[in-house]
Amino acid sequence: MRVLLNGCPLSDLTITDRALHYGDGLFETLLVRAGRPCQWSRHLARLAHGCARLGLPLPPAAQLESELATLLDGVEEGVLKLVLTRGSGGRGYRPPARPEPRRILLLYPRPAAPDWRRGVAVRYCRTPVSVNPALAGLKHLNRLDAVLARREWDDGAIAEGLMQTPDGAICGGTMSNLFLWDGTRLYTPALDQAGITGTVRELVRELAAEAGIGCEVRRLNGDDLERARACFLTNAVIGVWPVARLEARSVDLDDQPWDLLHAVRAAAHTPG
Amino acid sequence: MRVLLNGCPLSDLTITDRALHYGDGLFETLLVRAGRPCQWSRHLARLAHGCARLGLPLPPAAQLESELATLLDGVEEGVLKLVLTRGSGGRGYRPPARPEPRRILLLYPRPAAPDWRRGVAVRYCRTPVSVNPALAGLKHLNRLDAVLARREWDDGAIAEGLMQTPDGAICGGTMSNLFLWDGTRLYTPALDQAGITGTVRELVRELAAEAGIGCEVRRLNGDDLERARACFLTNAVIGVWPVARLEARSVDLDDQPWDLLHAVRAAAHTPG
Repeated sequence: MRVLLNGCPLSDLTITDRALHYGDGLFETLLVRAGRPCQWSRHLARLAHGCARLGLPLPPAAQLESELATLLDGVEEGVLKLVLTRGSGGRGYRPPARPEPRRILLLYPRPAAPDWRRGVAVRYCRTPVSVNPALAGLKHLNRLDAVLARREWDDGAIAEGLMQTPDGAICGGTMSNLFLWDGTRLYTPALDQAGITGTVRELVRELAAEAGIGCEVRRLNGDDLERARACFLTNAVIGVWPVARLEARSVDLDDQPWDLLHAVRAAAHTPG
Repeated sequence: MRVLLNGCPLSDLTITDRALHYGDGLFETLLVRAGRPCQWSRHLARLAHGCARLGLPLPPAAQLESELATLLDGVEEGVLKLVLTRGSGGRGYRPPARPEPRRILLLYPRPAAPDWRRGVAVRYCRTPVSVNPALAGLKHLNRLDAVLARREWDDGAIAEGLMQTPDGAICGGTMSNLFLWDGTRLYTPALDQAGITGTVRELVRELAAEAGIGCEVRRLNGDDLERARACFLTNAVIGVWPVARLEARSVDLDDQPWDLLHAVRAAAHTPG
């Protein structure tokens, strides 16, 4: 694994960093193809939005891009994780008035994936997703809910688990956004109370709009999912996963909006 | 600042640790007096409970105590922070089947505090507390809600901010538990949806029971607080803080259950 900490090849972080103590920071996970991160500008925009919401100074884009180029030198593909912490300092929860964020870049191998077109099996998780409108949508470092949810199953045949708020709103998967398809329209969970606004989620909405397909963002629950003709999951690394099985129910893959899925996957996996 | 990482005087943590990536771990904050941690057995019991809920192996008590003794060698007083992380490993959110937790002990100077008997000023925070019954009560490392809440004020005259769930249940302070007093009974927020079950909170309930004072654990909202004759805050470092001012309202300190407060403070600040 390659690592850069503030541009230097260090693999240790000072123990006073607030990411360790409070999860005080943000992250981005990007797919690297042909030596370049895919959808970089979307990830950068989301990071900037997260910084504004948390009160973190955003590092200059040129600095991040220069460090990315260093990290990816000679690399063909992989999974890149960018972590931005609030740095050290402040007493207790109170952050320093002028934080000095730390930039951490980590490069992992791209995980092996079966043919995405065959779809995946999905389960429901018992662990609820954490609800907080002040944090909802952000890709912040407080992810214990997803850790506990992902810990619920050990069956390699199950690719993802769906998480719900304590009052039963489905928020998405532990690591992915969810879309339902009723044959003419898409539906995706509102993320104003919980969850992460994925970059590929945004891409789906844009490409659907271009194709004249409506996409409604609203509260969704288990009944909505049961009634859907098809559903699929998205994130930056997988691109798109059609759901072939939901708990005990087989979902006919023929009912997927395949043209859209192919377009989303191609865009999500385009470097640069 | 003194630091021990797995018993060694190291001040860096490997960048793969899950506390950094997900806030995957727990912590305890203890007051050190006369060279010993106060209420150690309560902190250890809470840590054990947290480990059971998160699926973390609890280090042997003798190992923690031996490392504590090393850290506190020659120290009279201070604030001790014990962080237990899930260690490295696992791909993504999924934790390793057999985690190897890291033990981090940090010793900070005891913060200067004005005379506690004069009470403190308290405000309401706009940032909601995160709601998740699977995490509620635990002193875990996902504390961005408290960080954002503590960031709301810069006035040194305000000692603490109260946090509420998105639906208006008061949970406590950013770093403390809350008790209301109606002249005969105590009330403290139920922490089954959000918040941290403080060691001094437990102490208050025990000492109140011994003194024949009822203490009701239930949902509390702003109206309950407005109606209360007195209220006070607790945590392991401050012990007890009577509230002398709540936003613009002065609260008569004569109405506090002083005998109980003195007993709680004495017990909270007893080493060993």
